[in-house]
Amino acid sequence: MAPQLDSFFKQVDTLAESFIDRLRKAVAIPSVSADEERRPDVVRMGEFLASELKALGASVELRPLGPQPHKEHLELPPVRTILVYGHYDVQPALLEDGWATEPFKLTVDDKGRMYGRGSTDDKGPVLGWLNAIEAHQRAGVELPVNLLMCFEGMEEYGSEGLDEFIEREAKKGGFFEAADAVCISDNYWLGTQKPCLTYGLRGCNYYSIEIRGPAQDLHSGVFGGTAHEPMTDLVKVMASLVEPDGTILIEGIKEMVAPLTEQEKALYGDIAFTMDNLYESLGSTTGIYDDKEKTLMRRWRYPSLSLHGIEGAFSAPGAKTVIPAKVIGKFSIRTVPDMDPKAVDEVVFKHIDKVFASLKSKNTCKASLQHAGKWWVASPSHWNFTAAGKAVEHVWGVKPDLTREGGSIPVTLTFEQATGKNVLLLPMGSSTDAAHSVNEKLDRRNYIEGIKLLGAYLHYVAEEPMKE
Amino acid sequence: MAPQLDSFFKQVDTLAESFIDRLRKAVAIPSVSADEERRPDVVRMGEFLASELKALGASVELRPLGPQPHKEHLELPPVRTILVYGHYDVQPALLEDGWATEPFKLTVDDKGRMYGRGSTDDKGPVLGWLNAIEAHQRAGVELPVNLLMCFEGMEEYGSEGLDEFIEREAKKGGFFEAADAVCISDNYWLGTQKPCLTYGLRGCNYYSIEIRGPAQDLHSGVFGGTAHEPMTDLVKVMASLVEPDGTILIEGIKEMVAPLTEQEKALYGDIAFTMDNLYESLGSTTGIYDDKEKTLMRRWRYPSLSLHGIEGAFSAPGAKTVIPAKVIGKFSIRTVPDMDPKAVDEVVFKHIDKVFASLKSKNTCKASLQHAGKWWVASPSHWNFTAAGKAVEHVWGVKPDLTREGGSIPVTLTFEQATGKNVLLLPMGSSTDAAHSVNEKLDRRNYIEGIKLLGAYLHYVAEEPMKE
Repeated sequence: MAPQLDSFFKQVDTLAESFIDRLRKAVAIPSVSADEERRPDVVRMGEFLASELKALGASVELRPLGPQPHKEHLELPPVRTILVYGHYDVQPALLEDGWATEPFKLTVDDKGRMYGRGSTDDKGPVLGWLNAIEAHQRAGVELPVNLLMCFEGMEEYGSEGLDEFIEREAKKGGFFEAADAVCISDNYWLGTQKPCLTYGLRGCNYYSIEIRGPAQDLHSGVFGGTAHEPMTDLVKVMASLVEPDGTILIEGIKEMVAPLTEQEKALYGDIAFTMDNLYESLGSTTGIYDDKEKTLMRRWRYPSLSLHGIEGAFSAPGAKTVIPAKVIGKFSIRTVPDMDPKAVDEVVFKHIDKVFASLKSKNTCKASLQHAGKWWVASPSHWNFTAAGKAVEHVWGVKPDLTREGGSIPVTLTFEQATGKNVLLLPMGSSTDAAHSVNEKLDRRNYIEGIKLLGAYLHYVAEEPMKE
Repeated sequence: MAPQLDSFFKQVDTLAESFIDRLRKAVAIPSVSADEERRPDVVRMGEFLASELKALGASVELRPLGPQPHKEHLELPPVRTILVYGHYDVQPALLEDGWATEPFKLTVDDKGRMYGRGSTDDKGPVLGWLNAIEAHQRAGVELPVNLLMCFEGMEEYGSEGLDEFIEREAKKGGFFEAADAVCISDNYWLGTQKPCLTYGLRGCNYYSIEIRGPAQDLHSGVFGGTAHEPMTDLVKVMASLVEPDGTILIEGIKEMVAPLTEQEKALYGDIAFTMDNLYESLGSTTGIYDDKEKTLMRRWRYPSLSLHGIEGAFSAPGAKTVIPAKVIGKFSIRTVPDMDPKAVDEVVFKHIDKVFASLKSKNTCKASLQHAGKWWVASPSHWNFTAAGKAVEHVWGVKPDLTREGGSIPVTLTFEQATGKNVLLLPMGSSTDAAHSVNEKLDRRNYIEGIKLLGAYLHYVAEEPMKE
């Protein structure tokens, strides 16, 4: 199978140092999208990518997410077309935050850990696609599929405008029209040793509960005991939402969850994950369940409710004898199949109204949805996944775990809905990469073998039967 | 009675403009004790007071609150000795905070409202004593008592070191040794029309509940549903403390409260206070009780429990999907006779431990006392109060309300305990003076008549029978 991969792989190994150098150049551009002063660096990073891609012979358009110019339809060769997505902006990072090395300087230690902001999220995977192309060219091997690439520079700042752009380009005559499947490399292995393919994400409905009473903050000495205190009410309402063991107390939620089938249940036993993996990431042994299967199911396929905090109350160190006049509780529900986000809103608001009414408080309470992102589950038996599975076996010598994630990557659902095609999440980095945190890194092995994996995936895609 | 007051009163009226000018000079010195850069102004304000007092013939010592020099014992004339306390530092104030006029420039409007930081808290009352002395001198009337004055410059910053100083000076050979009673003018009328004498204050026990689980904040997508969340536990514990109607749910608290006697109950009916007064200060009608007596009792003679906020949780506007790793809930209990602060700690900690244990969480919970200040209640039938009552009737033509306050003025209890003498709170300003807030003011009428009141009080004190 796919014998042309050998020479491609050989080239990847030969070019390893130059690929690392390419990542070094990318990390050195501090493309922090959340920092307005760094926006020119985000643009510079986009231009760097464009010039690298052009040098590789790709046709590149830098597309602002505003109104777009008319463009000619590209005639693509009559083979499969894979649309890949990645982002080249990064989270903020300062040495003072606790980094052991300069965050915007790729620093490789003796264990091959390559430290630097964006190394794993998501400059490494983005450059992975470029490197795969270059290694094909050097090896004299044709790319076996058409490759459409969509690289974004505002992912860490909410991807504003991206949804509309994707929807537009997925339509007839758009850049993504010809895509047969989508591949996103922007998540992580479940652990550090075994690769995975990710076929599901939880959604997230984020709510506010605003309770207000007096016109301004009050002194608890003067008013304590005589006026209804918004904090007292809010804490009661928040306490009514969830139990310490994670059980959601909102009537109607449980019934929305798709039942666990025997087939799905069977998937969990083989997953390379241990309770120690959980304890290591928690930094404590405060997990709710003592076994792996329940823990993974709670993370992937059951909803959860987290209380995030309270706006408007006293939140500084020390002691302040204030009765806050207006407090806003924040919580979110991670959603799963078959929960309809709007139906979730309905039962949430009904529950809050009912509990607040039972308090018989003269304050006023208003619950609202801050934002909602739907869950996503793809079919892991689609050729997009079977091809990726074969590529993993070829490169890593092991069948990948089929995983979901507890968090959301909203663009995944957008691509699925806009293109109507199967979307695959094909991670390059591992669970210890510390994306968004200090000392973010990508292991050299994950980078170099990951480049092989991306290339191999394209070859196996080309070989899969043409059924949809 | 006290006929010599007539010429004193006349002088107060004659000198009114110069007294306002004295307050103007005092307000112009921004003696903000909380601001280290303003400390020289606090010192300057102390020197201003000292020089004004010296000009009036008083013997003045500027006493740093560190170790003190040896000093000669003063031979005081064999009449009653009244110790008065006030403070000359002020809360911070910036025009940008929303002041309608420059905060450090006394600005008198056409209704006689004198706006300026410190006008009512507490420069007006402090200068009131000086003005009363000056008016006596101009009127050629002897002060009928010995007057010891203790003016402090760090009250708004915790009065550090003051307790030890007072205890030292109250001992044999100390400056306060000879005091027969204490008078503090640093609080306010209950409303705007009727003067009051204050004989009680609630205490305050301030607590923290720290709950911690994971080693660092977690992503709710990744960990929601699999780990015990400190916020979930904390909100349950906080919700177990108090009902929306103010009922404290901690077992053992209710039993510590001194029962309401018929005699005490009778005091409440006549107090000049209406529910509209409450609603006006709340800026809402979210009071718990619909009648005056219950409201005042809840403020003055029953304990209350307020939830102030949570440290360590998400408290900013917007949405953040964080599971906070360590959260610290803050609440306080306003204490009343006969609650023993240490006994309160005991039942509080027992309650929290019990509730937390019932949650069966793997997180850890630690409750602690941040600070405690005891309640204070004086006997309003003591000659110190009857003298002040007669002075109020003389100046204002009305019997004063006998009030308590819901908040604490810790120095009150310190003076009582150190001197063993009766302490009277004799307010000058009214409930609308906005101490600590923007647009702080003192009404001209309260200032000028207040000067007469302070002077008259000294005369009635001198006439009271010598029983303790």
